[in-house]
Amino acid sequence: MRRTVFFVSDGTGITAETIGHSVLTQFENVQFDTYRLPFVDDIDKARLATDRINRAYATSGLRPIVVNTVIDPDLSALLGESGALMLDVFAPFIGPLEAELGTPRSPRVNRAHGLTDFAEYEARINATNYALTHDDGIDVKYDDAEVILVGVSRVGKTPTCLYMALHYGVKAANYPLTEDDLEKIELPARLRPFRDRLYGLTIDATRLAQVREARRPGSRYAKLEQCRYELDLADKLFRREGLPVQNTTATSIEEMASKILSRLGIEKHLF
Amino acid sequence: MRRTVFFVSDGTGITAETIGHSVLTQFENVQFDTYRLPFVDDIDKARLATDRINRAYATSGLRPIVVNTVIDPDLSALLGESGALMLDVFAPFIGPLEAELGTPRSPRVNRAHGLTDFAEYEARINATNYALTHDDGIDVKYDDAEVILVGVSRVGKTPTCLYMALHYGVKAANYPLTEDDLEKIELPARLRPFRDRLYGLTIDATRLAQVREARRPGSRYAKLEQCRYELDLADKLFRREGLPVQNTTATSIEEMASKILSRLGIEKHLF
Repeated sequence: MRRTVFFVSDGTGITAETIGHSVLTQFENVQFDTYRLPFVDDIDKARLATDRINRAYATSGLRPIVVNTVIDPDLSALLGESGALMLDVFAPFIGPLEAELGTPRSPRVNRAHGLTDFAEYEARINATNYALTHDDGIDVKYDDAEVILVGVSRVGKTPTCLYMALHYGVKAANYPLTEDDLEKIELPARLRPFRDRLYGLTIDATRLAQVREARRPGSRYAKLEQCRYELDLADKLFRREGLPVQNTTATSIEEMASKILSRLGIEKHLF
Repeated sequence: MRRTVFFVSDGTGITAETIGHSVLTQFENVQFDTYRLPFVDDIDKARLATDRINRAYATSGLRPIVVNTVIDPDLSALLGESGALMLDVFAPFIGPLEAELGTPRSPRVNRAHGLTDFAEYEARINATNYALTHDDGIDVKYDDAEVILVGVSRVGKTPTCLYMALHYGVKAANYPLTEDDLEKIELPARLRPFRDRLYGLTIDATRLAQVREARRPGSRYAKLEQCRYELDLADKLFRREGLPVQNTTATSIEEMASKILSRLGIEKHLF
């Protein structure tokens, strides 16, 4: 079974797509063809969106599903004229919250993912630049780091740091373990002052070998035995130094970021 | 008015926080203190979460608000015993979708942000590595790029590329305009074959001067007149070459990514 889904928003569409995707993944037997219709914030754009939904309806003969975060009720009503199954993301929560808070919501274009708090946004861009410039352990000062991910080459430190920086505005640095660290089975002295910000990453050796092979085919670096050797010493080092450790093999960067921030007690909010 | 909000999830908490944040921003007169409680996927963790919600209730005397994406009904019921205002994110949508699709949902832990599709995940990590290695225009081959952002230094190309890569798995490259490009008011020949993937970024001169000043204080590079000069030529170049253009001054990276992908017709889905 295939169904067409539109994520329609007066903003970026990120909220509509996030909730829509989470709900749809709970229907494993259905294939969904999904389309984003962002920035539907006036009558003309709402008409264009409605036309597009109508065409999908006519083509498939099955009514499309619209996950809708458009706040303006007139624009929402126009979208509803398409005959699609309308799932209004905000409607179920506004009533209970208005009652609880004793105040009406301010109806306006959804700017949840817009640039509304400039200082906060700047901190986030600065965190991203920080992650980019604190990525290789060379000449890096860790004083400002909120998180320092430690692990062997290609274990997944960089994407996880970038994600924490871009999404949570967290200053996340990397420390790639060197041969010297592994042989001594200890952290370099310059990391010691920041022990409570350190988090070890590990990965299954076969997976690491695949990743390294894609990067440097046929190298000693990518050999399974080399990967096993490094990971084994890294795991010993993590245990000896008492670091929290996460295996990245079957864990997404979202899951890693959420676990790391939770464990280190960092309560910055998601953008 | 201040209220305490918990985003409670059996997974990362990203869905709960995304929808919760979008709904809460519609109540501008209320200050929300928000906390994430991710990976609440067994009775013990649900009890710990309930205790924490209870403590917040006791401390403030106002019942907390729980934005809940825990799928297991027993765990949700336990959280409900805290007496908090429970906002169940999925409940309002499951009924209508089950009726529409004629199939029940598969109740299980929410893995919307987990690593479920390995090939898709790998494509996304590859896109992120691509963005990192196609960032400075030097010795860069653009053949594989799906998007190429063009603009002067510090206009916002890098964070936008990283966001598109990390979130949408889009191979996004940068091309920083050189003095030579600006003086000739034309794109270098090696970008011409990829014209339909190019997107120009611009920014207000005063803002650019601030950003550059933070990076290289007192430099000619950061002077307002230098910023104006470069931006003026870049805008002329964009017009002459017929590129779509986005001003980044008051636009978040989420908004830029959404606009760029929409305009270039790239329908990759959000992770």
